[in-house]
Amino acid sequence: MSTLVKPMRTSEDYLEHLRVMKPNVRMNGESIPRDHSVFKPAINCVCTTLELPRDPQNEELMTASSHITGKRINRYLHIHQNPHDLQMKQKMVRTNCRLAGGCMQRCMGMDALNAVSVATYEMDHGLGTKYYQTFLEYMQNYQENEWIGNCAQTDIKGDRKARPHQQMDPDAYVRVVERRKDGIVVRGCKICIGIAPITEELIVVPTRALTKEEDDWAVSFAIPADTKGVIILARSRAPKDRKAVKAPIAEIGDTLGMVIFDNVFVPWERVFMSGAKKGEWEFGGRLALLFALNHRHSYCGCKPAMVDIIVGAAALAAEYNGVEKSKHIEMKLAEMISVAELTFAAGVASGVYGKVTPCGTCTPNPVYANIGRRHAGENIYSEDKGLAEIAGGIPATLPMEGDFLDEYTGPLLKKYMKRAPHISAEDQERLWRLIADLTSSDYTGLLQYAHLHGGGSPVMEAIALLKEYDLEERKNIAKYLAGIKSEPIRTWKGAEWKSL
Amino acid sequence: MSTLVKPMRTSEDYLEHLRVMKPNVRMNGESIPRDHSVFKPAINCVCTTLELPRDPQNEELMTASSHITGKRINRYLHIHQNPHDLQMKQKMVRTNCRLAGGCMQRCMGMDALNAVSVATYEMDHGLGTKYYQTFLEYMQNYQENEWIGNCAQTDIKGDRKARPHQQMDPDAYVRVVERRKDGIVVRGCKICIGIAPITEELIVVPTRALTKEEDDWAVSFAIPADTKGVIILARSRAPKDRKAVKAPIAEIGDTLGMVIFDNVFVPWERVFMSGAKKGEWEFGGRLALLFALNHRHSYCGCKPAMVDIIVGAAALAAEYNGVEKSKHIEMKLAEMISVAELTFAAGVASGVYGKVTPCGTCTPNPVYANIGRRHAGENIYSEDKGLAEIAGGIPATLPMEGDFLDEYTGPLLKKYMKRAPHISAEDQERLWRLIADLTSSDYTGLLQYAHLHGGGSPVMEAIALLKEYDLEERKNIAKYLAGIKSEPIRTWKGAEWKSL
Amino acid sequence: MSTLVKPMRTSEDYLEHLRVMKPNVRMNGESIPRDHSVFKPAINCVCTTLELPRDPQNEELMTASSHITGKRINRYLHIHQNPHDLQMKQKMVRTNCRLAGGCMQRCMGMDALNAVSVATYEMDHGLGTKYYQTFLEYMQNYQENEWIGNCAQTDIKGDRKARPHQQMDPDAYVRVVERRKDGIVVRGCKICIGIAPITEELIVVPTRALTKEEDDWAVSFAIPADTKGVIILARSRAPKDRKAVKAPIAEIGDTLGMVIFDNVFVPWERVFMSGAKKGEWEFGGRLALLFALNHRHSYCGCKPAMVDIIVGAAALAAEYNGVEKSKHIEMKLAEMISVAELTFAAGVASGVYGKVTPCGTCTPNPVYANIGRRHAGENIYSEDKGLAEIAGGIPATLPMEGDFLDEYTGPLLKKYMKRAPHISAEDQERLWRLIADLTSSDYTGLLQYAHLHGGGSPVMEAIALLKEYDLEERKNIAKYLAGIKSEPIRTWKGAEWKSL
Amino acid sequence: MSTLVKPMRTSEDYLEHLRVMKPNVRMNGESIPRDHSVFKPAINCVCTTLELPRDPQNEELMTASSHITGKRINRYLHIHQNPHDLQMKQKMVRTNCRLAGGCMQRCMGMDALNAVSVATYEMDHGLGTKYYQTFLEYMQNYQENEWIGNCAQTDIKGDRKARPHQQMDPDAYVRVVERRKDGIVVRGCKICIGIAPITEELIVVPTRALTKEEDDWAVSFAIPADTKGVIILARSRAPKDRKAVKAPIAEIGDTLGMVIFDNVFVPWERVFMSGAKKGEWEFGGRLALLFALNHRHSYCGCKPAMVDIIVGAAALAAEYNGVEKSKHIEMKLAEMISVAELTFAAGVASGVYGKVTPCGTCTPNPVYANIGRRHAGENIYSEDKGLAEIAGGIPATLPMEGDFLDEYTGPLLKKYMKRAPHISAEDQERLWRLIADLTSSDYTGLLQYAHLHGGGSPVMEAIALLKEYDLEERKNIAKYLAGIKSEPIRTWKGAEWKSL
Repeated sequence: MSTLVKPMRTSEDYLEHLRVMKPNVRMNGESIPRDHSVFKPAINCVCTTLELPRDPQNEELMTASSHITGKRINRYLHIHQNPHDLQMKQKMVRTNCRLAGGCMQRCMGMDALNAVSVATYEMDHGLGTKYYQTFLEYMQNYQENEWIGNCAQTDIKGDRKARPHQQMDPDAYVRVVERRKDGIVVRGCKICIGIAPITEELIVVPTRALTKEEDDWAVSFAIPADTKGVIILARSRAPKDRKAVKAPIAEIGDTLGMVIFDNVFVPWERVFMSGAKKGEWEFGGRLALLFALNHRHSYCGCKPAMVDIIVGAAALAAEYNGVEKSKHIEMKLAEMISVAELTFAAGVASGVYGKVTPCGTCTPNPVYANIGRRHAGENIYSEDKGLAEIAGGIPATLPMEGDFLDEYTGPLLKKYMKRAPHISAEDQERLWRLIADLTSSDYTGLLQYAHLHGGGSPVMEAIALLKEYDLEERKNIAKYLAGIKSEPIRTWKGAEWKSL
Repeated sequence: MSTLVKPMRTSEDYLEHLRVMKPNVRMNGESIPRDHSVFKPAINCVCTTLELPRDPQNEELMTASSHITGKRINRYLHIHQNPHDLQMKQKMVRTNCRLAGGCMQRCMGMDALNAVSVATYEMDHGLGTKYYQTFLEYMQNYQENEWIGNCAQTDIKGDRKARPHQQMDPDAYVRVVERRKDGIVVRGCKICIGIAPITEELIVVPTRALTKEEDDWAVSFAIPADTKGVIILARSRAPKDRKAVKAPIAEIGDTLGMVIFDNVFVPWERVFMSGAKKGEWEFGGRLALLFALNHRHSYCGCKPAMVDIIVGAAALAAEYNGVEKSKHIEMKLAEMISVAELTFAAGVASGVYGKVTPCGTCTPNPVYANIGRRHAGENIYSEDKGLAEIAGGIPATLPMEGDFLDEYTGPLLKKYMKRAPHISAEDQERLWRLIADLTSSDYTGLLQYAHLHGGGSPVMEAIALLKEYDLEERKNIAKYLAGIKSEPIRTWKGAEWKSL
Repeated sequence: MSTLVKPMRTSEDYLEHLRVMKPNVRMNGESIPRDHSVFKPAINCVCTTLELPRDPQNEELMTASSHITGKRINRYLHIHQNPHDLQMKQKMVRTNCRLAGGCMQRCMGMDALNAVSVATYEMDHGLGTKYYQTFLEYMQNYQENEWIGNCAQTDIKGDRKARPHQQMDPDAYVRVVERRKDGIVVRGCKICIGIAPITEELIVVPTRALTKEEDDWAVSFAIPADTKGVIILARSRAPKDRKAVKAPIAEIGDTLGMVIFDNVFVPWERVFMSGAKKGEWEFGGRLALLFALNHRHSYCGCKPAMVDIIVGAAALAAEYNGVEKSKHIEMKLAEMISVAELTFAAGVASGVYGKVTPCGTCTPNPVYANIGRRHAGENIYSEDKGLAEIAGGIPATLPMEGDFLDEYTGPLLKKYMKRAPHISAEDQERLWRLIADLTSSDYTGLLQYAHLHGGGSPVMEAIALLKEYDLEERKNIAKYLAGIKSEPIRTWKGAEWKSL
Repeated sequence: MSTLVKPMRTSEDYLEHLRVMKPNVRMNGESIPRDHSVFKPAINCVCTTLELPRDPQNEELMTASSHITGKRINRYLHIHQNPHDLQMKQKMVRTNCRLAGGCMQRCMGMDALNAVSVATYEMDHGLGTKYYQTFLEYMQNYQENEWIGNCAQTDIKGDRKARPHQQMDPDAYVRVVERRKDGIVVRGCKICIGIAPITEELIVVPTRALTKEEDDWAVSFAIPADTKGVIILARSRAPKDRKAVKAPIAEIGDTLGMVIFDNVFVPWERVFMSGAKKGEWEFGGRLALLFALNHRHSYCGCKPAMVDIIVGAAALAAEYNGVEKSKHIEMKLAEMISVAELTFAAGVASGVYGKVTPCGTCTPNPVYANIGRRHAGENIYSEDKGLAEIAGGIPATLPMEGDFLDEYTGPLLKKYMKRAPHISAEDQERLWRLIADLTSSDYTGLLQYAHLHGGGSPVMEAIALLKEYDLEERKNIAKYLAGIKSEPIRTWKGAEWKSL
């Protein structure tokens, strides 16, 4: 394993940068600094991605050799070169998210850059453009600076019944409004953008397939998040009720934002797609799908981690409630586990059947990445239900911390909080607070939405799945068995199959 | 229809009383008044139960003739006399909850008193006690004062593997610690008690079936909520984010509490079951089930109302997103509607097959009340999922009000919020806020827990269902068809069937 | 209760008629008589509808007073006059199907005639036609002859993307090809027609809504099943394996057919809709829906009966396997029961909220009839799964009867068949055969298809449901709560509501 | 790749052997030959396992190098040596089953022998027995003779509440009744034994974990299926209706049987576990689980193939019905596909995380093998439902072949069978017959039972899953996040994890 050339970046390095970035983050009508306490929970999550790889025991899991410089880098900065890389990425994500208590908030940037790698290379070969070299140079910077990047994909979209070029307001999808000698000017708005208020780099990719009238919307670039003209409207979600009873779950949370590009200038050395050449629109859709594909593969790591937490809490609640041996509780746990592990298995298969593209970047198998994320997305509400069923009603109704600390009511609560004889009232309270934070707090809905829609909704994955799936071969099998004229049924010869 | 003898009680009357009640409500370590702003959302809900019956057009729906005095009373004060009463109650609940934006918070008291009516009458006939007359006198007071009452049923329960009399701490279930000439003294703790901080009367019933060692735990009574020795630890849950964008949904919410009975004296004229007579334990379980039965029937009215709101929001989101004619959206709406209406239908059948007991009180059919509540409980998470799917991710990520009002970002948000051409940006925002309040706010988890566990969890309803269901007759039918020796198959002759 | 004017028709009367009907039933390339043994299982089911009402204890349940003659008639011959009639019909169906071991095969005729009653009356009032009087006279004959009728609705439909008048072959939907002085001539083909080979009367109604070009397809009539030009291609499905181990389940089954109308003449006194008058097409769709509505209400009686049988078999298997007290088995049974009783409850609500139309015929509430049938249809495969899960694999693999009777292997099977000590090897075998007949025989697939698609598929019911549902009111509630301009929210005033 | 030393065995070789085996197969009270037409459908399936590897293009997929002789052998005869072998096995199974039109009936023997390999080796090392060498010699024979073997595992089990040694009849589980110098004598009965009537070798393994009193039930061996004392009671299931319309689906089917061991002598060279040495009982349970594990991994190949067929038929029906572009149909197909591919992905993960045991045999990862088979088992009824929904009712009601061939009705059927303009009436008929064979024939129920229970029921897999799953680590994560004292959270370091 190549050795680390320099000490890896620390959380403090990152925070230091956040402090000096130009103020363009706003919340509730005011400008707020990037290191504001409201972002602390999300920053804490990001910091796990910086600290874990610094622990030598995690080196294999969380670092990789740069395909550009050969140096050992944080795996979140890596362009995957083979199926093994994809599998390591998936494992890193699951491991990291378990420790972060949920989303570690850093896969988006990695997934976007892996997508840009493939799309720029393909575009250069198809259209004779020169974006791949731009990408490689940017990527080298990105790795050397060990940036935290995210991805801005989802456009505001305006009227759902109109295509980008048919919108009353053409800015409903981010677009190039001017092409200059030194770069491009873009306008538009991206929503539901994870870690927007605390990212260092914004990596922008298109949101959907485009048509030939839509070269202007075929735009991808990376800019510092505090670039002039960028306005970030922040939201932050975290469990809110804790003050005294400290616990890791109470320190974490998510932040995201709406990102407005109000005539933002992007120099050419940061532009990966600009619609400058006729035909780039075709690669807009390709890039959109490639990001979704890489991101859905990452979800096959993070979603199982989320279920690990939910299942752990449910199993602990079952133990504390003394019902852990009841067969119907066991069946419920098995059902919950099944969601996690089928999702993880889909990620494994997506990695194993990953494909090394001509530029050397390995992309996950789309059938398995899509069914994996879809399965997780379809089931997050059931997982919460399972936890709530096993826990019972108390996480939603537990008296507040002050009542536990109060001289008058504290002793009464201690008396009445006791359940299983071997569990202290304090641990009992801590478990209920964990479950409340997960399933009955200001954070709950965000978790549910993020797991349902994040990375693309189940409907989107079904559509992507059907696009990639070799349904014709299945129809062919049915025809053969029915005695209807059919093509010869294929037997398995690896890469010859469009899909499995 | 009998005329109202006096003007019905107003919201102001109720608030006036809350203001003068003795201070025994605490939150987060402090004593707080019952009219504190934190309870305002829940008080608003309760007030709908006072105001709606005052509207003459709602008279038939929301008032009834007292079986004690013959006077026209608010139907929430009524002891149901026949299947028609049960159906009217169910309709009242659904109508009221639609307007309250969720739980109207007042059925518990009604359901508890209907249960006490039957259980005291049966106990008197079985054991020769005199509780039914006590109940009738209390009930007359209750109706004349038009009290807001709730029900305190769920004990803290301690070690789930031990019965009440086997607990290390015998107070794990509320119990009589002393029987005096003038009344009883009780100790224990009830949890998850709806509207505890703002109720006027606490109506206490046992939580489970008891055994012969457990007469001391066979205890039921009603007391003013500010009785000496009662400590109420309050929680309040409501959407929190609104300041400027006023809307009814932003004015409502729930409150509930843990209620500690710290050696509370209850005079005999308010005692409905005390374990004073050997054998009362048998009626403890009966009373517990009767409350659950009545309450589950009420849920067959309120849960469909909740789904009405969710479906309405989903249908509106589909319209605003321009996908209302898409077949898979229609199928999703049909699925959501089906949950609401099957639950409602179960309530209708429970009422139609309700049974007038010897004391004249009509109890709902238990098979249908249980399957109805169970079906709603099993599906609330799916309903939220359905709404979130149709809405998309934005309810969870919408910028805050201040950003919409801000001079700098307001116009940009107005520009980018537009979707369907015929919907204003403001209405669009309002819809997202409604959906956020329901599915991604501090209120969300409580709604989910309340709909899952409120009135008894699906598992409890499955158990109650199997207890009442004539499974033997089904086995008999199977035996007959299999050619195994069987009893004659019954044909339908109404009341002769144990169940349907 | 009015007394029966004459002894009711017997099974022997019915069989006698089948024997003398003209031979137009064909199977597998041959003409076969209507009393052929292959139809015996289905005939046995029909006969229960003749025999049960003859038992005086079933009089209230299974007979009614004709609204035409006032005479007491078999309820299957009745036009329902009020919600009570609908409820009695639903109970009759459930009771009858339990005893028939599944479909009693006679509700279609009743449901079709109830639909014709309303549609002809409405058409006469809308268009000035005279069909209602024709219907009444036919109906009087039908009641006096105590006919067995079915309903032929589903057209072959040809190209699903084309409307009736756009088909390459206009006969893809049954249509009038000639209108004569004495009647009409019709051509076309109806499929999936229950009891076609053993019905006495075929009652034909349209299959879908029509457009103004489609008066020729607006056709409804009743004819003897052996009318010239009618060809019935029969299928029969029943458990096949039994020879020695006699049991009621082995005596029953279904029959159905494709019915071809090869230029069939229908005299005017049997025509209920003919497209002779411009505008009849509008009532074609209405009649199609009315039959579906009545039939779906009937399904709310028969499907619960089918589940009664499945649940009974499952509960017996659990008992014989000694797992009847296992909590996860109990939860599974509760889930299965829930399907039956929610469906039944939907039927009850559909009846209670039934509407007496101007001609005096009472039609079920469409929202509840549709959600009820839909719920049953969505769950039949789960019910079979539940039974198979509890039974284990043996119903599918049980040795054949001959092995049990064989001198050599019989004693070994007796030895190895024993499970629960208190159950004889013979009863054990009988139970496995019952479950095999239901879930692993030639009959199984038909049962599954019939319960999925019979009366209209879940998708059709979802569409019908949405058509009738007051979704606008739910959107209105959502608008009100969101603070969007809305109509006043309605409170419950019975008939004023379009739906609940 | 090593070359094949001799031409591989042909179908004719196999049939030749079946013809000369001693007659001990019985059906319905009679002895019948193994090449009886009733077994033809199943024999056809088995023959695909002989013919496919003979095609050079399938060599990599369907052959392997024997770890005993180094010769190239049919992969069904192979003991897997590494994760790659497991993945090739899974692919072989899926490919083969697609072509066999369902179960290819030969994985059981392979799975049993792989299990015996590991269990005998472990037993020898634990107890000092010498079974592994016996196994290796038997295995060499097995490979050289290219036998068709199956596995006899499931005991009749008698009273489910009693353990083997507590049964009233000790033969309720197969046991050793005598140990002789030259071998053992066994008695008992195994049920639901796939291909029992047409297997050449019966490989017997225990059915469950045993206790220390149960060494006599710790018995495993392989014998020719026509060994003296073995009685096989056969069942055969296949679509039955076809005569004229030839199609591959009409040529295949399953056979299975109850296998009675009526004091059967087994020589030591065929005994793999006999309870002769105190302590073998512990390895009885181990062997039972190992077979289940290998077999569940195989199911992760065959069940996706079954769904390939179902999905292919559904997609074809959608196309023929002209609804293939309808979004709700697409969502249904995506849901069906998801079941297949999640199951397959679980198999991939089970292979990738497979473990090479000390004897060199590679065993699948148990968590993934169990969730994979469980997921398929939980969903087979839904798959059939999905197909039936898309097809509509006609597969269950289609007229019989004779009617299509008949001069009178044939032309009418041709006229009315037409749907999509580009599909011939004959192809339309063929598709309906395929779907009927799958979902509405005598075969249907067997398919459903086989997919639900085959390889162990979902409940058994849930139990196996929980046994292997590192639930403690999840509880530990929950404790850590809750702030309850916990162990350090592990990061991913491959084999150190008990499970993922």
